[in-house]
Amino acid sequence: MADRILIINGPNINMLGTREKQIYGNQSLEEINKEIANMPILKDIDLEFFQSNHEGVIIDKIQEALGRVKVIIINAGALTHYSIAIHDALKAVDIPVIEVHLSNIYAREGFRDRSLISPIAAGGVFGFGATGYKMAVYGACELLKDN
Amino acid sequence: MADRILIINGPNINMLGTREKQIYGNQSLEEINKEIANMPILKDIDLEFFQSNHEGVIIDKIQEALGRVKVIIINAGALTHYSIAIHDALKAVDIPVIEVHLSNIYAREGFRDRSLISPIAAGGVFGFGATGYKMAVYGACELLKDN
Amino acid sequence: MADRILIINGPNINMLGTREKQIYGNQSLEEINKEIANMPILKDIDLEFFQSNHEGVIIDKIQEALGRVKVIIINAGALTHYSIAIHDALKAVDIPVIEVHLSNIYAREGFRDRSLISPIAAGGVFGFGATGYKMAVYGACELLKDN
Amino acid sequence: MADRILIINGPNINMLGTREKQIYGNQSLEEINKEIANMPILKDIDLEFFQSNHEGVIIDKIQEALGRVKVIIINAGALTHYSIAIHDALKAVDIPVIEVHLSNIYAREGFRDRSLISPIAAGGVFGFGATGYKMAVYGACELLKDN
Amino acid sequence: MADRILIINGPNINMLGTREKQIYGNQSLEEINKEIANMPILKDIDLEFFQSNHEGVIIDKIQEALGRVKVIIINAGALTHYSIAIHDALKAVDIPVIEVHLSNIYAREGFRDRSLISPIAAGGVFGFGATGYKMAVYGACELLKDN
Amino acid sequence: MADRILIINGPNINMLGTREKQIYGNQSLEEINKEIANMPILKDIDLEFFQSNHEGVIIDKIQEALGRVKVIIINAGALTHYSIAIHDALKAVDIPVIEVHLSNIYAREGFRDRSLISPIAAGGVFGFGATGYKMAVYGACELLKDN
Amino acid sequence: MADRILIINGPNINMLGTREKQIYGNQSLEEINKEIANMPILKDIDLEFFQSNHEGVIIDKIQEALGRVKVIIINAGALTHYSIAIHDALKAVDIPVIEVHLSNIYAREGFRDRSLISPIAAGGVFGFGATGYKMAVYGACELLKDN
Amino acid sequence: MADRILIINGPNINMLGTREKQIYGNQSLEEINKEIANMPILKDIDLEFFQSNHEGVIIDKIQEALGRVKVIIINAGALTHYSIAIHDALKAVDIPVIEVHLSNIYAREGFRDRSLISPIAAGGVFGFGATGYKMAVYGACELLKDN
Amino acid sequence: MADRILIINGPNINMLGTREKQIYGNQSLEEINKEIANMPILKDIDLEFFQSNHEGVIIDKIQEALGRVKVIIINAGALTHYSIAIHDALKAVDIPVIEVHLSNIYAREGFRDRSLISPIAAGGVFGFGATGYKMAVYGACELLKDN
Amino acid sequence: MADRILIINGPNINMLGTREKQIYGNQSLEEINKEIANMPILKDIDLEFFQSNHEGVIIDKIQEALGRVKVIIINAGALTHYSIAIHDALKAVDIPVIEVHLSNIYAREGFRDRSLISPIAAGGVFGFGATGYKMAVYGACELLKDN
Amino acid sequence: MADRILIINGPNINMLGTREKQIYGNQSLEEINKEIANMPILKDIDLEFFQSNHEGVIIDKIQEALGRVKVIIINAGALTHYSIAIHDALKAVDIPVIEVHLSNIYAREGFRDRSLISPIAAGGVFGFGATGYKMAVYGACELLKDN
Amino acid sequence: MADRILIINGPNINMLGTREKQIYGNQSLEEINKEIANMPILKDIDLEFFQSNHEGVIIDKIQEALGRVKVIIINAGALTHYSIAIHDALKAVDIPVIEVHLSNIYAREGFRDRSLISPIAAGGVFGFGATGYKMAVYGACELLKDN
Repeated sequence: MADRILIINGPNINMLGTREKQIYGNQSLEEINKEIANMPILKDIDLEFFQSNHEGVIIDKIQEALGRVKVIIINAGALTHYSIAIHDALKAVDIPVIEVHLSNIYAREGFRDRSLISPIAAGGVFGFGATGYKMAVYGACELLKDN
Repeated sequence: MADRILIINGPNINMLGTREKQIYGNQSLEEINKEIANMPILKDIDLEFFQSNHEGVIIDKIQEALGRVKVIIINAGALTHYSIAIHDALKAVDIPVIEVHLSNIYAREGFRDRSLISPIAAGGVFGFGATGYKMAVYGACELLKDN
Repeated sequence: MADRILIINGPNINMLGTREKQIYGNQSLEEINKEIANMPILKDIDLEFFQSNHEGVIIDKIQEALGRVKVIIINAGALTHYSIAIHDALKAVDIPVIEVHLSNIYAREGFRDRSLISPIAAGGVFGFGATGYKMAVYGACELLKDN
Repeated sequence: MADRILIINGPNINMLGTREKQIYGNQSLEEINKEIANMPILKDIDLEFFQSNHEGVIIDKIQEALGRVKVIIINAGALTHYSIAIHDALKAVDIPVIEVHLSNIYAREGFRDRSLISPIAAGGVFGFGATGYKMAVYGACELLKDN
Repeated sequence: MADRILIINGPNINMLGTREKQIYGNQSLEEINKEIANMPILKDIDLEFFQSNHEGVIIDKIQEALGRVKVIIINAGALTHYSIAIHDALKAVDIPVIEVHLSNIYAREGFRDRSLISPIAAGGVFGFGATGYKMAVYGACELLKDN
Repeated sequence: MADRILIINGPNINMLGTREKQIYGNQSLEEINKEIANMPILKDIDLEFFQSNHEGVIIDKIQEALGRVKVIIINAGALTHYSIAIHDALKAVDIPVIEVHLSNIYAREGFRDRSLISPIAAGGVFGFGATGYKMAVYGACELLKDN
Repeated sequence: MADRILIINGPNINMLGTREKQIYGNQSLEEINKEIANMPILKDIDLEFFQSNHEGVIIDKIQEALGRVKVIIINAGALTHYSIAIHDALKAVDIPVIEVHLSNIYAREGFRDRSLISPIAAGGVFGFGATGYKMAVYGACELLKDN
Repeated sequence: MADRILIINGPNINMLGTREKQIYGNQSLEEINKEIANMPILKDIDLEFFQSNHEGVIIDKIQEALGRVKVIIINAGALTHYSIAIHDALKAVDIPVIEVHLSNIYAREGFRDRSLISPIAAGGVFGFGATGYKMAVYGACELLKDN
Repeated sequence: MADRILIINGPNINMLGTREKQIYGNQSLEEINKEIANMPILKDIDLEFFQSNHEGVIIDKIQEALGRVKVIIINAGALTHYSIAIHDALKAVDIPVIEVHLSNIYAREGFRDRSLISPIAAGGVFGFGATGYKMAVYGACELLKDN
Repeated sequence: MADRILIINGPNINMLGTREKQIYGNQSLEEINKEIANMPILKDIDLEFFQSNHEGVIIDKIQEALGRVKVIIINAGALTHYSIAIHDALKAVDIPVIEVHLSNIYAREGFRDRSLISPIAAGGVFGFGATGYKMAVYGACELLKDN
Repeated sequence: MADRILIINGPNINMLGTREKQIYGNQSLEEINKEIANMPILKDIDLEFFQSNHEGVIIDKIQEALGRVKVIIINAGALTHYSIAIHDALKAVDIPVIEVHLSNIYAREGFRDRSLISPIAAGGVFGFGATGYKMAVYGACELLKDN
Repeated sequence: MADRILIINGPNINMLGTREKQIYGNQSLEEINKEIANMPILKDIDLEFFQSNHEGVIIDKIQEALGRVKVIIINAGALTHYSIAIHDALKAVDIPVIEVHLSNIYAREGFRDRSLISPIAAGGVFGFGATGYKMAVYGACELLKDN
């Protein structure tokens, strides 16, 4: 069976392409996902996309990934900074995690300084906009090769 | 089409009138809403009431207000103090926001000192109990007049 | 005898309409006061306006309001953030206090985060510019009705 | 009618027995619950078990306990440390609360130092693993006797 | 030889029943100890009670427990919050420790927030008054069974 | 020429006896001053009383005391906690200072914790109400004897 | 039976007059005590002097004062700044406390900034050297008169 | 009409030359002002000197400078560190500000570390004693040339 | 002329492959560089490698890149956390910067929490070991395409 | 008369060699002391060993050393970090102090970061286990030579 | 022999005039230096210019100034904020230091708030751009006159 | 081949004996080194001395010690407090480190409180002046014996 990568997007990421285009670009999340799905490197890998504005739903999803998914790529949006529960869920399932942020969270408000996901991530990418997901996929494939 | 004001109430506001009456008065949220709906100033304005104990549901609601609603009046309850995700949702839809608190949050526990909604609000009202919503409606109408 | 509301403005509020118009609008304090005085809701209520750049003079005024005034509406300007003496004066006279700020003090410099008046205020309004005074008058009238 | 104790478990507690067994033991939450239900001390007391990964669903449950439940035993998991909304819900329903933690939260990461439930709890138990629930039940029965 | 549990009480716990009865109840420490000693669960276990107002005497006692005692139940009173030396003594003898507090220390003054005993305790109980000791004994017996 | 002691009272001390009598007693500042003036120990010492709500006026007074006054007894009221300018004035005139507080400032709000006068005071008295002034006079006389 | 005042001195106060004379003067603690004992104001009042370098011994003494002593004057020396246990003992016996410090503790190292005795003291005196005890006795007599 | 520079000195600067001569030198403020007035560089520039111990009077002065003065040189003394109101006044009139301190405020007490004037100053000079005013005048003339 | 990417490595990165292999792998920096140089994506792009243990030498190098280099990829090692001078150099030359860290700096000592490079970086990659450089090259090529 | 060095060991140092041998080695305090006593460098110097778990007893000992002892070598154990009273005692007797710690206290828990003895010590040695005492004796002899 | 003033510029100051001209102006460091060298006030004074991006090289230079140089004017650039070693070098050579900053460091990022040079500087100038050096030279000449 | 000890001295240590003699004594670094070299204990051990004012040069030296040196004794001077890069270099080469400070760094400015070398040092010596190096050599020889 093919390895599977799960890409989780948190609250408000579904607004991409609709608003604040000067910051986040014109692409909708659907368009970004389509572009990711077309990466040649992924030809033998299953990809699964998920988005929710609900912390609890994201936790359910992470738990349900156990035994099914090899790598989780997650952009938890604002929940990155305070959801200890997502931190715990990711630690509980013990699946390698790659953290993505579209913007440079270190160049924004002070309350975005701390990521609760970083300490348990295998690695992370920030600031590259939609390209960051592709870089994360690239990194995920390296992780899959190593195992 | 008439301008529309959306009034969002967060977790536990639905308990008004049932408990802690010495602090919050005897009025239920339904009674307060009815009183607001009867304000003469609102005769050409549509009013929409919404309450939820779920952060994610509130975010969904805010996103869904885009293009439909002219002003959001929000009492996010306890979420005021830690939900960066609601902060982001309000910023993403870019609808003018008026913040309301029934009690004087600055005279309570230290962890209620910081509002994540204030920095992006057009303005706010605190400490007037149910009257605060009416003051916010008054302010919202001024905002509508200015635009 | 008619109930009396005292509206106190602190340092630099007398500069309204002269400078930084893009932030504070074109209205002078006199024009704002005139507009407030014309609110129909105030027809049976005495209104008294006071402005000073001097902390001590404001304290004298607050003390002198004892027994004469039913509600104090105060925009203490910069003194809001460090004048414990005004805090004490307001507590000493034990007259209900409504705090007003023209701008959104929570969206500005860090040293404006803390209000020494909020903890003892009945309620407050921030961010609505001159409209905030009218909202405060509206709230003050509700307070007068309750007593 | 028999007194009722409601045992609420928060996010990721449903993963017990599946993962991190060296820390949390081999018992699943169902097995633990069964063991609690068999405590002789509970023969005249109704017991109700509830688990959710969703903050909002837990708040709904707490509100719905009003008038039905005599003691709430809660292990809010990671939400312990940031959910002011659960804190508020517990305060609003004013039912005695016993806080449980399987692990010693004071010997872990700094962000687990602060419990928002402790300040409003009648008492608490931490660090005893599944035994902690039984100790809490023991304490709950003492509370019921006192009333 | 029977297993032995040592119950250590720190400064001012000997004042129980004499003063501040509204907080701590009418029972003296002697009465509480007697009640603990009568717990059926303890029929094959030796119990030893100790109280001192002196940090140094408590440390001597802990050291002297080495090789004699299977579990230490300790309510170190105010020393909980600053005696690193008791922390060290408990760590040095490496006997399982159960921490007890009569009151809810997390709902009191800020300087009682930090327990230096918690990080090295097997577990703890707070807020149940004298019942807390019985819950701790209950937990201690579970610990003895596990070994 | 007789030695002279200057007793300075800061903002809101002139409200004594009028309000908050349960805290500060029924005596007015005038009555307290009269009682101080009648202390036998003062028979060869000139006493001068001064009160102002204005920081600047107090600074003028302190400067004007130079060369005329042997000891300053000061209760700077709320200015105690933020007026670096009064701190500087007292240091500049280099007259021995005795600090008085009617209430126990260390048992009140956090922002009253720090006194800017204490570091340059010869000594201080807090918490004794009006008696504190007499104790300070007693201490001042000892200082005069030593010189 | 005559009212009794207990004067407690903590660690290192017994070194007075032996060392650091330029700071603390030439008087030994015995000489200071003798001088206090001779105050005319004390002719109908019993005085009891106590000094110890041991926190535990001081706590024992405070507990033993219960029912025997009307006012405690305490200079807890360095223990002032960290002994929560002495704080608790004083609160437990509920005897009015007057805090004395020979030096100006607010003009010294940062770790002397906080007094754990101040928040529960009736009042305090600092910075007057040995004279401070006499001022405290003066204040204690006022307290005795009030009761 | 000639350009005008206003030199404002805050509280206690009027004490120069009278006290603490070893720190601030023997020159009185009048002598310093005379020396400044004689600087050749100022021959076509009007100079205005102002000193007050009153925050409110300084604010009045700053407001009154609007439209009359091209550069303000200010040594706000102790008010530098806490007067947000002077900060606001200077920002409101929008006249270029040069900050002067006679002493090196960064080598003194911690509470002098922060200047509320620095963030809005065109530039500043500290530590040169009376020479600092002359350096500021030199800098002010450069500013006048640039405009 | 081909676009040029400069890859700067800071202090101790030259030790890769020699020590702490369990953390950083067996590859030397030379081997990693060789692997990067062979990436097909780079066929029309010049690559330049640079390593130094000296902050000053790195700053010289950054300045010298001005006008020659299109993207800087930098792993500043420990200097990341305190070299404001490198931060300033990168800002001064205004070349897009991609930050790389081999390890997950957010899961290590507290003093590695803050990156002075992040706030001015276009984006960053952490935690992927040597793969991180390749991901950064991938991201750099995207940046070059966009311009 | 021979110079005398007093070696004071604080709480739990008497447990050396009994427990935690992997950290502190197999030597008991008695064996360490014997080894120190045999150092050739000490042939003309009196050595005195003292250990106590009681802060008060250690203070008594320090006071009693006055006039008898030339150098104090002290390993105050956990009291190092909070006993201001030992700090004061050492300062009061004004005997040169050498601080010893068996372990590297700077590589342990945060609450061991601060030593209250370091600021008044002539010098210190940490991290060398029992060898640290010998190094301290070596240093003490150098101090004795200098005087 | 003529008195000598050494002007040291730290990292990135050599970029002046090349980049960020809107902030720092069009002048290169060479042009600024030439302008300084032409100041009439300097006709009997030797001037020496030095710039380096290397902390170590700047320290070497400061040490080598000993006995040769009468005043050091230093703009340490970013090293101002973290180089304790430059602080120590300046203190070691004990030559009067004048600190210069082109921009207003107090109106920028938080990590530029603290200057390690200010506490040991005779005085400083900030915010005047290149004019600041001339003001510093003016101040340096005053210092030379005083000695 | 003989074991080799490398003694590294950081910035400004080369100024010993030239300046601030009252603090650091009259000995130059060369004289201290000579005295160390003559210690009898070192007769079969190679000693290597190194000093630099450059962080980068010190890091190069540490890296170059790998495989050649058995113990590093380091007095990193001011770099102790901020050079994470030296911390990393020492950790990378994994040679036992002994930290030396001539003065008592814990009794000086706050910014010298934290040593970045202590957490990775085998042990350390502070406050003994030049004697500290000899004590460190003594300790280093003990370390060599143990291995």
